[in-house]
Formats: sequence, C-alpha cells, structure tokens
Amino acid sequence: MTDFSSLSPQALRACIRRGEFRGNTSGFAAGHVQCNLVILPEAWATDFLRFCQANPRPCPLLATSPAPGDPSLPALGEDIDLRSDLPAYRQFRNGHLAGEQGDISDLWQDDFMAFALGCSFSFEEALVAAGLEVRNISEGVNVPMYRTNIACRSAGPFAGNMVVSMRPFVAADAIRAIQVCTRFPAVHGAPVHFGDPARIGISDLDRPDFGGAVTLRSGEVPVFWACGVTPQVALERAAPPIAITHSPGCMLVTDKRNAELAVL
Amino acid sequence: MTDFSSLSPQALRACIRRGEFRGNTSGFAAGHVQCNLVILPEAWATDFLRFCQANPRPCPLLATSPAPGDPSLPALGEDIDLRSDLPAYRQFRNGHLAGEQGDISDLWQDDFMAFALGCSFSFEEALVAAGLEVRNISEGVNVPMYRTNIACRSAGPFAGNMVVSMRPFVAADAIRAIQVCTRFPAVHGAPVHFGDPARIGISDLDRPDFGGAVTLRSGEVPVFWACGVTPQVALERAAPPIAITHSPGCMLVTDKRNAELAVL
Repeated sequence: MTDFSSLSPQALRACIRRGEFRGNTSGFAAGHVQCNLVILPEAWATDFLRFCQANPRPCPLLATSPAPGDPSLPALGEDIDLRSDLPAYRQFRNGHLAGEQGDISDLWQDDFMAFALGCSFSFEEALVAAGLEVRNISEGVNVPMYRTNIACRSAGPFAGNMVVSMRPFVAADAIRAIQVCTRFPAVHGAPVHFGDPARIGISDLDRPDFGGAVTLRSGEVPVFWACGVTPQVALERAAPPIAITHSPGCMLVTDKRNAELAVL
Repeated sequence: MTDFSSLSPQALRACIRRGEFRGNTSGFAAGHVQCNLVILPEAWATDFLRFCQANPRPCPLLATSPAPGDPSLPALGEDIDLRSDLPAYRQFRNGHLAGEQGDISDLWQDDFMAFALGCSFSFEEALVAAGLEVRNISEGVNVPMYRTNIACRSAGPFAGNMVVSMRPFVAADAIRAIQVCTRFPAVHGAPVHFGDPARIGISDLDRPDFGGAVTLRSGEVPVFWACGVTPQVALERAAPPIAITHSPGCMLVTDKRNAELAVL
C-alpha cells in the first residue's frame, strides 16, 4: 500500500488524479505550499480579482489561470490539471452548495478561471518548526473558524465579513507566533486579533462556524488569523450561476516550497 | 534661550557637559539612540558582561569602554565623555542609592568600566512612526515599570527578576507593535508578555514599581517589554562597593541613529 504521506507533490497529485487518494491533504508533501482553490466563469473573474486585491489578509492570491478555460496552473506546478488534481471539490450553484465530487472534468467550462489562494497549512508548518504547539494539529481536528464582524472591502457582488481561524497560545508563544507568521504574508500573515472574541463579533469559541472546537487551557489566549474560507462566504453572497472550490482540508498541493513564500 | 529639543546629539551633549541642561532627554536629538548607562570597577566587569550576554532582552549591550579608566565611548560618539555628558547620574554604594549628581568627574576611578545598554526610547520612536499611540508619551509620564516573577539568568553576583515596562494597546495595534519592535532587538526587541499581569507576577497595574501609571482603556490589553531597569535591580543585589548609573530618563545621547539598529 502506498505511503502517501512521504510522496512528492508531483507523485501525490498523480495518485489523486488516478483517484487513489481522496483524503485531507494536511501534513502531506511536507514543505510544499497547499492552496485554497476558487473557480469561476470569466465574467466574474475581474470582480473576484479585485476582491482578493482589496482583502489580501483573508485572500492572498498566489496564482491564476494562464487563460480562460485552461486547467493548468504552471506558476505552481508544471503538470497541474485543476480538473482532477484535488482530492475533493465543491460545486456551488447560485451561491448554494450543490454537491461534492473527486473530479470536475464533467463540469469544466471553456470560460473557467481558477484562483489559487494561500492556506494556513504553510504558516502552521512554520509555527511547528519554531517549536510551537498548534492545537488543532495536536488534537487532530480541522482548525476552528468563526464568522466575525470585520467587514471585507467589497468588489462588485463580492462582499461579506472576514472569517478567522483560531489557535490558542500563552502570551509569550503568541508573540513568537506573530513574529513567525509575519514572515508569510502570502499565506494570511500575522494574526488580525487576539484575546476577547467578542471584540470581533464572536460569541462562543466552543461553537465554531466551520471546523472543530479546540481546547483553550488556563493562561492561554485565543489568537485569530484571517482565513481562506472568507472568499467562500463572499462567493455564497455573490451567487454566480456556477462556482467550484476545493472541499475543506482537501487542498491543491503545489510544487512551490513554503520557504519560498517567506519574505525574510 | 537655547531650544534644546532641536539640537544635534553633539550639541546637546556639549550643553549637558557645560551644565546648561539637566533634564529628561526623552524626545531630544530625535532619531538618535539614547542609552542606559552602568559604570562599575573593572573587577566586576566580567560578571556584569556575562549577565548582559545571558539576558539580552532586558540588557541589550550596545557598547563598552575601550579600556578601564577611559571615559570615552567612541563606538557611540567621537567626543563622548562619560564623566560629564549625562544630565544626571546616580551613585550606588554597596547596592544602595547614595546620591544623585550632574557630573561624576570627582568620582571617576582608573578602574571604571562603562556599559551602554539600549533603551526603549528607540523603539517608542519606531512605534510612533508606525502611527501607534504610545500612552506614556501622550499622557506625558515616565513609562510604568514593574518587577516580575521572570527570573534572569544569574552571572556571579548579578541576579534577580526581570523588570518590564508596560504600554497598553488594542489587540490589532499590539500585533503591529510586536512586528515593529521585532526589528529592534538591540533595544529590548519584541514584548515578553501581554494580557494578564498576574501571569508574570504583577499584582496591580495602577501601582508600578518605577515610573508612573497610565490609563488602560476598555478593549486594551497591557503589553510588557523587558526593561533597562533590570540591570539596576541586579546591581542592587550584587552590591559592588561603588557603581554609577544614569538617572531615570536622563540618558546618554549618542550619535548613532535608531535606524542603524533595525535588523530589517
């Protein structure tokens, strides 16, 4: 049986393409950038691009399709085929989730444009490398995510409030985490808030809007990062006739190294 | 009447040397590094150097005397005379404050070694330049400082707990302050703690051990930095027969620019 965890990004994508791997990609192809994916008809592309440009913390755009209808993404990997290279996709019709599938070749349109956005897996790897405990990793759950009252800047039909992910730390470790993540603006960068959740409109940390809850120990403060689910919320609001995203945790695995994203 | 605030470091030191200026140096010679000063007999120098080396956050050593008994400090200014160039000095005998004076020529010894340590004035200037409000500046008080339960690493007779300074910020500004100060490890660097003061042994923020209290507004968290008063506390504990320091707020004004201290 294949040990998927030690495969190169190219080999892992090949397994996914052949339908041999359908799981969460967290921890796979260590050291390599994984991405949130958004696919939209060309007519919606300009507004979505403007939305990403105006909201770089939740929507750090790493790459776009070379041309409408082209399923490759050479900036992030020579052989990437966006129709088949993610373990699971979500299909949205008029802003509503309309299904989940492991291959979208049957849905592909000549006018599709894809957008690959930075993902927290990259900075979590840097946090772990810095000796910090990332609670959602140690407790084996999808990171807790919350809708906030922090408004994104709107662009055409794309609008909405920021979604944040939360990781608890004692203050000294939170300071170190801020330093580490500051080096990675392309994958959400430094946190946007810490401490009192109510200040950003979160009423109950034990009830995340996405992902699972994690333990907050005595002496720890919750630290909040802008989250890649934000564009998905904006997508629901914009309600294009069709849109496709990755399924949560089932990311686009790229050939780019996390170290390449460090600005320092 | 001389407008001392706009003088160059060299001109300001000349005024101080002539006894024309005896005040707090905060805000003077803008853009230039000001230093904490510790002067000790040579026999105590090695242990104090080891103490600074082991505790770089509270004791960031910027320069030492070129030789015992030499009152110059060419690394920080060509014409510096440490016997006369600070507005006010404190004399300690066996660890106890024994007097304050504006010139120490009468106390100078052939075996004196001087140590210039980074000071928070440098990072406060960077915080203000970043558009942040530094409460002790806006309220016109000496920054509040507190004894903590964070033990310094000891070196010979030099030991004790860290002293910290506190500045309140809302969380988003605290994150920015951490980023800004991370660039300046030579002047205490990033904060060591934020939030609950009791976690580092501080029982009442309204009663600082040194300096004055500042307002903590609703929604703000206290942010704590390692403080240059720490070596003074270690000095009291080591109790050398004689030691001289600057008087609080009356610093050594140097020719070095704060921008030169930025590591990024």
